[in-house]
Amino acid sequence: MLVDRTKLLLDTIKRLLRRSATSHLHKIVNKTHAADLAVVFRFLTLSEQETLFDLMDSVEQKAMLFSELEEEILVKLIEDMPAEKIAEILEQMPTDDVADLLGKLSDDRSKALLDLMTKEGSEEVEGLLSYDAETAGGIMVPDFIALKQDATAREAIEALQKDYADVEMPFYLYVVDDHDHLVGVISLRQLVVVPPETKLKSIMATDVVSVETNVDQEEVARIVARYNILAVPVVDENNKLVGIVTVDDIIDIIREEATEDILKMAGIGGGAEYVETQSIFMSVRKRLPWLFASWIGGIFACYVVGHFQQSLSKLVYLAAFMPIIMGMGGNVGTQTSTSVVRGLATGRINVKQIWHVILRELSIGFSLGFFYGLLLSLFAQFRYGYEHWQLGLVVGFAMICSMTVAATVASCLPLVFHRFHIDPAVATGPFVTTSTDILSVFFYFQIATLLLHI
Amino acid sequence: MLVDRTKLLLDTIKRLLRRSATSHLHKIVNKTHAADLAVVFRFLTLSEQETLFDLMDSVEQKAMLFSELEEEILVKLIEDMPAEKIAEILEQMPTDDVADLLGKLSDDRSKALLDLMTKEGSEEVEGLLSYDAETAGGIMVPDFIALKQDATAREAIEALQKDYADVEMPFYLYVVDDHDHLVGVISLRQLVVVPPETKLKSIMATDVVSVETNVDQEEVARIVARYNILAVPVVDENNKLVGIVTVDDIIDIIREEATEDILKMAGIGGGAEYVETQSIFMSVRKRLPWLFASWIGGIFACYVVGHFQQSLSKLVYLAAFMPIIMGMGGNVGTQTSTSVVRGLATGRINVKQIWHVILRELSIGFSLGFFYGLLLSLFAQFRYGYEHWQLGLVVGFAMICSMTVAATVASCLPLVFHRFHIDPAVATGPFVTTSTDILSVFFYFQIATLLLHI
Repeated sequence: MLVDRTKLLLDTIKRLLRRSATSHLHKIVNKTHAADLAVVFRFLTLSEQETLFDLMDSVEQKAMLFSELEEEILVKLIEDMPAEKIAEILEQMPTDDVADLLGKLSDDRSKALLDLMTKEGSEEVEGLLSYDAETAGGIMVPDFIALKQDATAREAIEALQKDYADVEMPFYLYVVDDHDHLVGVISLRQLVVVPPETKLKSIMATDVVSVETNVDQEEVARIVARYNILAVPVVDENNKLVGIVTVDDIIDIIREEATEDILKMAGIGGGAEYVETQSIFMSVRKRLPWLFASWIGGIFACYVVGHFQQSLSKLVYLAAFMPIIMGMGGNVGTQTSTSVVRGLATGRINVKQIWHVILRELSIGFSLGFFYGLLLSLFAQFRYGYEHWQLGLVVGFAMICSMTVAATVASCLPLVFHRFHIDPAVATGPFVTTSTDILSVFFYFQIATLLLHI
Repeated sequence: MLVDRTKLLLDTIKRLLRRSATSHLHKIVNKTHAADLAVVFRFLTLSEQETLFDLMDSVEQKAMLFSELEEEILVKLIEDMPAEKIAEILEQMPTDDVADLLGKLSDDRSKALLDLMTKEGSEEVEGLLSYDAETAGGIMVPDFIALKQDATAREAIEALQKDYADVEMPFYLYVVDDHDHLVGVISLRQLVVVPPETKLKSIMATDVVSVETNVDQEEVARIVARYNILAVPVVDENNKLVGIVTVDDIIDIIREEATEDILKMAGIGGGAEYVETQSIFMSVRKRLPWLFASWIGGIFACYVVGHFQQSLSKLVYLAAFMPIIMGMGGNVGTQTSTSVVRGLATGRINVKQIWHVILRELSIGFSLGFFYGLLLSLFAQFRYGYEHWQLGLVVGFAMICSMTVAATVASCLPLVFHRFHIDPAVATGPFVTTSTDILSVFFYFQIATLLLHI
């Protein structure tokens, strides 16, 4: 397993660090993949990180490590490093990673580093920095292959060998017209198998999927996933080819967005991922505000129960059923909202059929409520039935009400959020559980007061 | 937006279907990308799907549609189709997609279809069918390029043009020894730029990342994501190259696994994604069992409250604070368990540091509890303080207890599940909320009984 292998590597490195076994460490560090080192770095102290980093021989490997490291770790690592040394490493990194890093530094620092870089490299980075980090423009790399439509296959291959020797992964060769407008695409393989004098124009595919620079990265990921392509060309507003987004970056985006959605649904909000190095104070500060909705809701529920204090004092054992009725409502609410939020995220829910979705979830909630309400009814009759024969009816009805209302509210909230362009993932957390809590308690006591005549 | 474009397409197709505008439909169907048609199919009835399908001209496009369609839809669509027609389409599909489909059909049907396919195609499919669908063997395709290590670059290019003309996306050229053991990898681009007589042996990279056939698909996805590769070679137990897993399949896996995790965390379980066509009865059946844990927990809570009935009857307004204390505990529990589960899934949590993680979450829970406990204490004093001056203390302490215990339990459960090789995502749903409910109520009344002397 990848996890086991990484753990073994981490243990070995830690042991060697304790023993200051420099020559051993040197060997390991220089033959380990940068992606694995980046994971190990997460669990090391800054001074341990620096020790390892200084043992790395080649600037290329340092550059790869920079690309793989988490931003938080990287920013700390380079804090005390001389600017010249950093700039030298940045030169070897993919432009989009450099832009990401510089975007995290102070303006002064970022400018100083750009000044130290070669003109060509710094211009590319500055170009990327002008786009929003979470759009196609912010995640693209300018390393693409663009060939003129009147060129021949032979000329294309020659250009590949001379002009594009530094392009990392030439998945597709894009074809442009005289004004650099994107007009077609050819695969490298096609180029190798056609007669050398064939014009690109005659073999290129013309239905190229492309995105504009301002398209959101999530949308770019959706397009790459839907059409199973390895890279999507990015064009400016005039359809001029300016970059490509490659599939390896897309994978990272899909994972990040999934994590973000999961955390939002749990009411933790963005950027609150589990981070070893994050202080407890920081974690508390990130989680605190999300619980406020729940606190306010609890105070509401407090007033609702207070409102029925009279009835409750006559039949104290009614309180015993509050947790189960609230809990089941809350759980069915979470099920519903999660299903709807995920349906919206993956495009399975057609927003035009709002009423269809709500009616469907209402029916599911009612059915589940009917089943568990009946079960609770029997239990209540068996446990407290000698005091009030209607008690079974009360808790049964309350359960049906609670679960039906919870499912309805939990399907409406994400749809409403979506309509107002608020991320529906936010809606599943505290909002759903809190509102179902209040409604459940209210319906429970209302039904009890009516049926038990108290 | 992709979503908007799809909606427009769906609306157009539905309108044309209503008007039976066959020639219009014919044109649209044949120029639309199969991936887009597959999405449209989700919202159409079976007979509408059949109408569209019959309008498709080429077998290749039908094959692409088959690959893109959701299995549930596809299985229904081919139910009444003559086997010969299906087999003809299967011939054009990637082997892994055929294997997936046949795995979903009855043994008889699947065998009948295999018999109708050409020998070569059916053997490949049967090879794949022998692996578990969710392992590297089950998701790989046998379309890879394997070259002998003693071949020259020129020979390799010739082989590419003759023998491997049907390989879809030749990302990497794998190099094998005389016994077909995987020994190296070369990129197509390298091949084009070196002198024609260069031996592959001398230019190949020898540190190839590969997986064995029985490796779980999630692990394969993790490897592809970590090392930013476009395809990972799959080998059998003797290191013989048997297939590759490509990055486009990895993207689908990452999305599916994220959805699965999200649904599990919400206590819906696998395969319960929002599906338009799924009957309400089916949805109920899938969600019902997950709520049972919560129901049992509620019954427990019922006994706990019953246990304190004496105290409660003396101070009925204590019941008013039950919802907020339970609710806050539940929410902080969900935050914690989600953060830990996601940390385990993404490898951010080092399982050796269990105590560190638990202690950390306990501290966070305590801090949050202290803040909101203080807030609630003030509120209680203001609202009911005239009856009992200790009430503020009681609810404040109860809140601290509830949130601390909830955070601790919610960090332990996923770690324990992980230890016993049960998917920790399952642990965050009903289990956490239910156990925190019970504990919260218990501590609340215990503290109240002690401090208020009731």
